Amino acid sequence: MRKTRIGIAGYGNLGKGVESAIARNPDMELIAVFTRRDKSGINLSCESAMVYNINEALSMRDRIDVMILCGGSATDLPDQGPFFAAIFNTVDSFDTHAKIPQYYKTINDVAIKNSHVSVISAGWDPGLFSLNRLYAESILPNGTQHTFWGKGVSQGHSDAIRRIKGVKNAVQYTVPIDKAVEAIRTGANPNLTPREKHYRECFVVPEKDADKSKIIESIRNMPDYFADYDTDVHFITEEEFNSNHNNMSHGGFVFHTGKTGSRNHIIEYSLNLASNPEFTASVLVCYARAAWRLAQMGDKGAKTVFDIAPSLLSPENRDDLIARLL
Amino acid sequence: MRKTRIGIAGYGNLGKGVESAIARNPDMELIAVFTRRDKSGINLSCESAMVYNINEALSMRDRIDVMILCGGSATDLPDQGPFFAAIFNTVDSFDTHAKIPQYYKTINDVAIKNSHVSVISAGWDPGLFSLNRLYAESILPNGTQHTFWGKGVSQGHSDAIRRIKGVKNAVQYTVPIDKAVEAIRTGANPNLTPREKHYRECFVVPEKDADKSKIIESIRNMPDYFADYDTDVHFITEEEFNSNHNNMSHGGFVFHTGKTGSRNHIIEYSLNLASNPEFTASVLVCYARAAWRLAQMGDKGAKTVFDIAPSLLSPENRDDLIARLL
Repeated sequence: MRKTRIGIAGYGNLGKGVESAIARNPDMELIAVFTRRDKSGINLSCESAMVYNINEALSMRDRIDVMILCGGSATDLPDQGPFFAAIFNTVDSFDTHAKIPQYYKTINDVAIKNSHVSVISAGWDPGLFSLNRLYAESILPNGTQHTFWGKGVSQGHSDAIRRIKGVKNAVQYTVPIDKAVEAIRTGANPNLTPREKHYRECFVVPEKDADKSKIIESIRNMPDYFADYDTDVHFITEEEFNSNHNNMSHGGFVFHTGKTGSRNHIIEYSLNLASNPEFTASVLVCYARAAWRLAQMGDKGAKTVFDIAPSLLSPENRDDLIARLL
Repeated sequence: MRKTRIGIAGYGNLGKGVESAIARNPDMELIAVFTRRDKSGINLSCESAMVYNINEALSMRDRIDVMILCGGSATDLPDQGPFFAAIFNTVDSFDTHAKIPQYYKTINDVAIKNSHVSVISAGWDPGLFSLNRLYAESILPNGTQHTFWGKGVSQGHSDAIRRIKGVKNAVQYTVPIDKAVEAIRTGANPNLTPREKHYRECFVVPEKDADKSKIIESIRNMPDYFADYDTDVHFITEEEFNSNHNNMSHGGFVFHTGKTGSRNHIIEYSLNLASNPEFTASVLVCYARAAWRLAQMGDKGAKTVFDIAPSLLSPENRDDLIARLL
């Protein structure tokens, strides 16, 4: 059987992660990377693939089975999602939770019209965490669910700090509070406020002569982002920022507890990720395999991780999976 | 929409667990319990359901949407699986790992011939643990996987002890070794022997005048079951056995570690179950929902947890699931 031919749209950390994930999956091959920028600025690790401008996508229609969209959810995917879904089967990691239903509808309309399969919001949250929430609550329907994120960087919170006057650069780590995690894991079934679940740690490079106490105050009182949490702010130099804060590790926990009789069952799913973008890329690649299989079966439209049978994610045939893993 | 009509075949701990799980799922109703024994000996908690003999199953063909098979894997399911798959859509928890491929084939042939959907080997292992092995290795294909079971009773090991001369009753707990679990959880990626992963703890009621040291020796040297493990044997009275060893809690962990760059990602799934049969029953009930939906779509044949899209397990509609859980 020939390999599944993959395109990558966007060559940042996520796109590079997809490139390296494809190299670990022998049933897939990278055909091309698409960029909005100057093509000559991109050097691929994969020697057999080519770099194209996004405008050239249409000409590659018959040479790519699935396009993996590696742009950001805030500004790239709202345009690139429907653009590529008209031309290719696609997979993306759209992660603005509140906007997923609208994004789903937009992509679904385009994908159905063009007879493509488009898997949206694959990754770990949305993605694997969502799956675990669904499986767990289907099994124990009257349960309690808690999701913890971290320790890892929240891009949204880091951006919010960078918009404060006097801030030159900043990074914010979301940290789950051990005591809360342990209380759930040992079956205490506590009622937790946001402040009791996560703590926020900020590293800020101030502008010269900035009013540091005012920066701290602005951060700590920021509604939605920080006001409901305990927040520590550390001021550091640009050098320290560059050498200590480019770590991309992340992770978290999904807990579901529920009773069948008098006592609690506890289901826990946890991820401890060395690299958030490389792991997310690995999820996207196995959902690209599923997207291509669904398209070959004649399916079309937007799909989520909820819609895809697990066996479609594996390169192995069903009989072998049953014998080896069931 | 009318409720999904469920039958239960076998009214032991698992069957009773299914009855109570149905009461927690308002879209389902229990129609009948089928038994091989004297019907008059069974008092259901559910007042609207009836008790029938297994021989009366055929007459209920049009009144039950899915039959949940609650017999044991050793002697009940090899007969009852194909018998019921000819009459109804079915769900079972067949868990003799080595015999699953043959069981799959047998059930698949009958189910296809009779246009039924039969979900086999649903539960937590096989079942949820299998799913987590599949998802994790599809994402990180060159990883290492470890499954730990317990603390909980192993029926097979308990049976093996009860066959030893001089043993009146016995129970064996499989206990994961904390040090091994912690080593994996912290990323050490160790190479573990069976002895380093699990420890076996046995509680034995000896016959009067039995040779206790010989019993210990027989247990510890039993190939496959005990010889590769550290095993503790405690002799107890029948009274102590009856009051302290009817606990049905169980659980375990599935770990998958794999690299994308130089460092490890760790995926962990863990279950801490208050009651093994009640939890397994809860899994069976949500797979019964999926079986009925697949049958209504015209699907047929044997299915495993690998083949079933997660959204089919939930009573909620797809748009709401996407908005709330994705």
